[in-house]
Amino acid sequence: MNCIADFFTYETTKSVVVKSWTIGIINRAVQLLIISYFVGWVFLHEKAYQVRETAIESSVVTKVKGFGRYANKIMDVSDFVTPPQGSSVFVIITKMIVTENQMQGVCPESEEKYSCVSDSQCQAERVASGGILTGHCVNYTSELRTCEIQGWCPAEVDTVEKPIMIEVENFTIFIKNNIRFPLFNFEKGNLLPNMTAAEIRSCRFHPDSAPYCPILKVGDVVKFAGQDFARLASTGGVLGIKIAWVCDLDKSWDLCTPKYTFTRLDGLSQKSRISPGYNFRFAKYYKTENGQEYRTLLKVYGIRFDVLVYGNAGKFNIIPTIISAVAAFTSVGVGTVLCDIILLNFLKGADHYKARKFEEVNETMLKVAASPNPMYCRDQTTEEKQSTDSGAYSMGH
Amino acid sequence: MNCIADFFTYETTKSVVVKSWTIGIINRAVQLLIISYFVGWVFLHEKAYQVRETAIESSVVTKVKGFGRYANKIMDVSDFVTPPQGSSVFVIITKMIVTENQMQGVCPESEEKYSCVSDSQCQAERVASGGILTGHCVNYTSELRTCEIQGWCPAEVDTVEKPIMIEVENFTIFIKNNIRFPLFNFEKGNLLPNMTAAEIRSCRFHPDSAPYCPILKVGDVVKFAGQDFARLASTGGVLGIKIAWVCDLDKSWDLCTPKYTFTRLDGLSQKSRISPGYNFRFAKYYKTENGQEYRTLLKVYGIRFDVLVYGNAGKFNIIPTIISAVAAFTSVGVGTVLCDIILLNFLKGADHYKARKFEEVNETMLKVAASPNPMYCRDQTTEEKQSTDSGAYSMGH
Amino acid sequence: MNCIADFFTYETTKSVVVKSWTIGIINRAVQLLIISYFVGWVFLHEKAYQVRETAIESSVVTKVKGFGRYANKIMDVSDFVTPPQGSSVFVIITKMIVTENQMQGVCPESEEKYSCVSDSQCQAERVASGGILTGHCVNYTSELRTCEIQGWCPAEVDTVEKPIMIEVENFTIFIKNNIRFPLFNFEKGNLLPNMTAAEIRSCRFHPDSAPYCPILKVGDVVKFAGQDFARLASTGGVLGIKIAWVCDLDKSWDLCTPKYTFTRLDGLSQKSRISPGYNFRFAKYYKTENGQEYRTLLKVYGIRFDVLVYGNAGKFNIIPTIISAVAAFTSVGVGTVLCDIILLNFLKGADHYKARKFEEVNETMLKVAASPNPMYCRDQTTEEKQSTDSGAYSMGH
Repeated sequence: MNCIADFFTYETTKSVVVKSWTIGIINRAVQLLIISYFVGWVFLHEKAYQVRETAIESSVVTKVKGFGRYANKIMDVSDFVTPPQGSSVFVIITKMIVTENQMQGVCPESEEKYSCVSDSQCQAERVASGGILTGHCVNYTSELRTCEIQGWCPAEVDTVEKPIMIEVENFTIFIKNNIRFPLFNFEKGNLLPNMTAAEIRSCRFHPDSAPYCPILKVGDVVKFAGQDFARLASTGGVLGIKIAWVCDLDKSWDLCTPKYTFTRLDGLSQKSRISPGYNFRFAKYYKTENGQEYRTLLKVYGIRFDVLVYGNAGKFNIIPTIISAVAAFTSVGVGTVLCDIILLNFLKGADHYKARKFEEVNETMLKVAASPNPMYCRDQTTEEKQSTDSGAYSMGH
Repeated sequence: MNCIADFFTYETTKSVVVKSWTIGIINRAVQLLIISYFVGWVFLHEKAYQVRETAIESSVVTKVKGFGRYANKIMDVSDFVTPPQGSSVFVIITKMIVTENQMQGVCPESEEKYSCVSDSQCQAERVASGGILTGHCVNYTSELRTCEIQGWCPAEVDTVEKPIMIEVENFTIFIKNNIRFPLFNFEKGNLLPNMTAAEIRSCRFHPDSAPYCPILKVGDVVKFAGQDFARLASTGGVLGIKIAWVCDLDKSWDLCTPKYTFTRLDGLSQKSRISPGYNFRFAKYYKTENGQEYRTLLKVYGIRFDVLVYGNAGKFNIIPTIISAVAAFTSVGVGTVLCDIILLNFLKGADHYKARKFEEVNETMLKVAASPNPMYCRDQTTEEKQSTDSGAYSMGH
Repeated sequence: MNCIADFFTYETTKSVVVKSWTIGIINRAVQLLIISYFVGWVFLHEKAYQVRETAIESSVVTKVKGFGRYANKIMDVSDFVTPPQGSSVFVIITKMIVTENQMQGVCPESEEKYSCVSDSQCQAERVASGGILTGHCVNYTSELRTCEIQGWCPAEVDTVEKPIMIEVENFTIFIKNNIRFPLFNFEKGNLLPNMTAAEIRSCRFHPDSAPYCPILKVGDVVKFAGQDFARLASTGGVLGIKIAWVCDLDKSWDLCTPKYTFTRLDGLSQKSRISPGYNFRFAKYYKTENGQEYRTLLKVYGIRFDVLVYGNAGKFNIIPTIISAVAAFTSVGVGTVLCDIILLNFLKGADHYKARKFEEVNETMLKVAASPNPMYCRDQTTEEKQSTDSGAYSMGH
């Protein structure tokens, strides 16, 4: 019974209350500062009362529209957008170097650095830019002899200057983006319901006047990313279309909206002398009537668009609220550290405060206490031997 | 020497032990609550003793199998799956609008909104849906005259109603997914070793009866995502196959298993009137014997599958265990805040408890203390001037 | 006025200073340990004074170079790299099974398991490996009769053993990777400025001698990932090229460099008997002069490369510095828990320390205190009834 009574006790710290205007004002000011920080920054700005979801489920479908003139042909989306699936990464071709009717065989190299006078300069089996050297030196033009290669012939000449397809600037990119925050089962799309179908079809994105329009002009995207269209189209490049969904789900559904930003992702390659820009080669394969394969090789320069979707959402939840509130409460106590330093070191009468705050016990006294006279006059001793140690908080002597 | 002795001291707070059943029970109850929370929630449920790895290395290889009949042809995987590389994102084509033998040239527009009576209605250089207007109004059929376009001719007619390839419902998707948690060097695949090769080849995924089977029927995936196959195949859509690996590596290796869930990723676009579903165009290029290029344009509707792999793993580690244990220990002290409020305000004899907890020092006393009589009777003063201030914890007077 | 004076007070805990070498040394040692942990681990190792950015913007452009001989043809990048766009995921084909001139029609199955004697063994409409069964049993070779299928004919024979393209081992992969930490607006590329253009063109990556060279030999990547080239090329597989950017932006710009590591991503599938390796099928489509479509079906084995970019960056910031410093300060107090346990339980004279630390108040005393004699001799009581309870910190009696 006594044991249970001993258990159900409550232990609280004994405190010294200092009635001093100086330290009192400092104390309350520090507490006010800490509380302001928690209320203002942690609760209101950082929304510590919310549980936050950063895993965003996103689906992006893109569609490019436009017609361009290139090499005496009218080209449509199937000709200049690759891959065609309308995924989040796609390339719009702006410039092409076409090498038609290549067949397997032997032919002279097209690059000047493979020019030769005799076979000895053309080491067989070495890899050249268009194929594998046969070891022969042959006529390329009437004036120039180059090493002969085996491979797809004729060899590609990619040093020619080709025009860009200027119509690309007016092409439009339609982006359909649906997101979902699984934790909150919150779904939303970038085709906001307050826009009519007609509005969506006719609008063009602009950060100020039409920030929610899902149709973007290529020229605008290039401009918003801080690039020059003609130069970008000529060298190729990679642009990022970033869609950010930062949502406070405690607020209205309507206020959860996408924010579009644009950036050049291969920004540094334009400064680099080595392979600036973006290009790649691919081939279209054909067969002659008698079954022989031939191909058209295309070296294409283009703008690659990466649609990147980021996002996070917050919603009120009791657990983070309690945790933050407890953290705020206990942090108020941190102010004591500062105030103790001031009180015990810099305030007038610091020694007296020390005497009141600290009570000393030492081993010598214990021995006395263990003697037949246990009722040693405690108060007198402590009065006489007030500690001057200030623990972690008072700074030296 | 004295200085060193002063340094090696230990400072602990002086405490008041209240022997009261009321506050004692409240105190222990609050402590029990806090300890239960830490043991039950933080340690057992949230596994705070584990270090957690969220960066998962994943590789997905997919393979679709099946044959379908469409437009009097038997189609196989090479015909209806794109891109063919077996990556984590792929499209199974369910419907096609084929426009064969398009060549560069001029022809009338196929869409009714470009119908015209005279050339004046067809502004040259304007972009139409199939090419660029030439400015002429020509016969499309014997009854209808439309604007003439330059581009790939004949123009596509995509308003026709086409059937879907119903066999797609029975196609199977084989998913090979290998994951690795680099921090723990833990590797596992979704082909679990307790399944024989024959079992894996013959099984079909089902959330209850075959939750680890890596072969999924398309019709099942559509159903599990809550969609109707016929409607989805007709409009196209994007489905997500999510594979979650949530592993407790303190447990047996066998218990780290994948969990498959299914969702429609473009869920909202089915409600939207603007571009519901998923389709895209691509072309196959051919050449005539005399070298003229022509193409077959395909507008395809399909189901895009995105295989998304998530995961995290936890394993016991001494550092988070210590940190959590310390946090638990210190949090027990938070209960004191609540108990102090009760003790100093609401309990019978609250004033007396205050008198015991708080000891007052004020500036007036300091002046006296600084007087020639330093051995001022301390206890008496404090007894007479017991503070009634309760700091942050007692609420007002 | 009095109310305001009451408000501007400062409350600090009353402390007992124990002058004992034993506990003093333990106390300071524990404090030293905690401070060392914070300074050494939290501040110096974990860099808790920095704000950390884990969202990395990355763009990857890849380019493969090389020529291979396969099936009496010289193949170039356009022939054996797919998809051609130079994105972060691409396949280099190492082995091919080519089925030329397939047309829609009927023909016998090529697989032995579809061998038959009579039509009854060939159930019509069932799906076989090359098409849909017609229900007839026909001659495949002069000795073997198999079920007839409808589909692309002739059926593929994929059981033949084909050689691998050994030149792939010498192919090079050029990786252009630009990253950006949006929070710090820090941009960098893997073509480091201290390398000249000539150096970059001629170098080959090696973890020790050329760790920043952006050109990687395929054979090296395979070797660094711990694989055997001949076996990998024969079965196919998925390799990960991981580029890690872990940057301390407080240090010099030059010290933020990429680190390349290599791993086999489908590591477990090589042990599995079911579908080891990586292969897929695709088709090239042709048309005869009279408009009939035919195709070349390719079953290709290859090495898929996934370029994965990870990264995080840290930079000094005042807010995490303050938070960490406060956490360090308050954690020093945690040492008190341990010291109290030792002091009140294990130290010689523990009872005496308890008597000094704890002061007891109980309900009986309150009743007396509420009696007409409020100036009850406090010190005597506390002296006589020193608590032996040690709260949360002393362990039982």
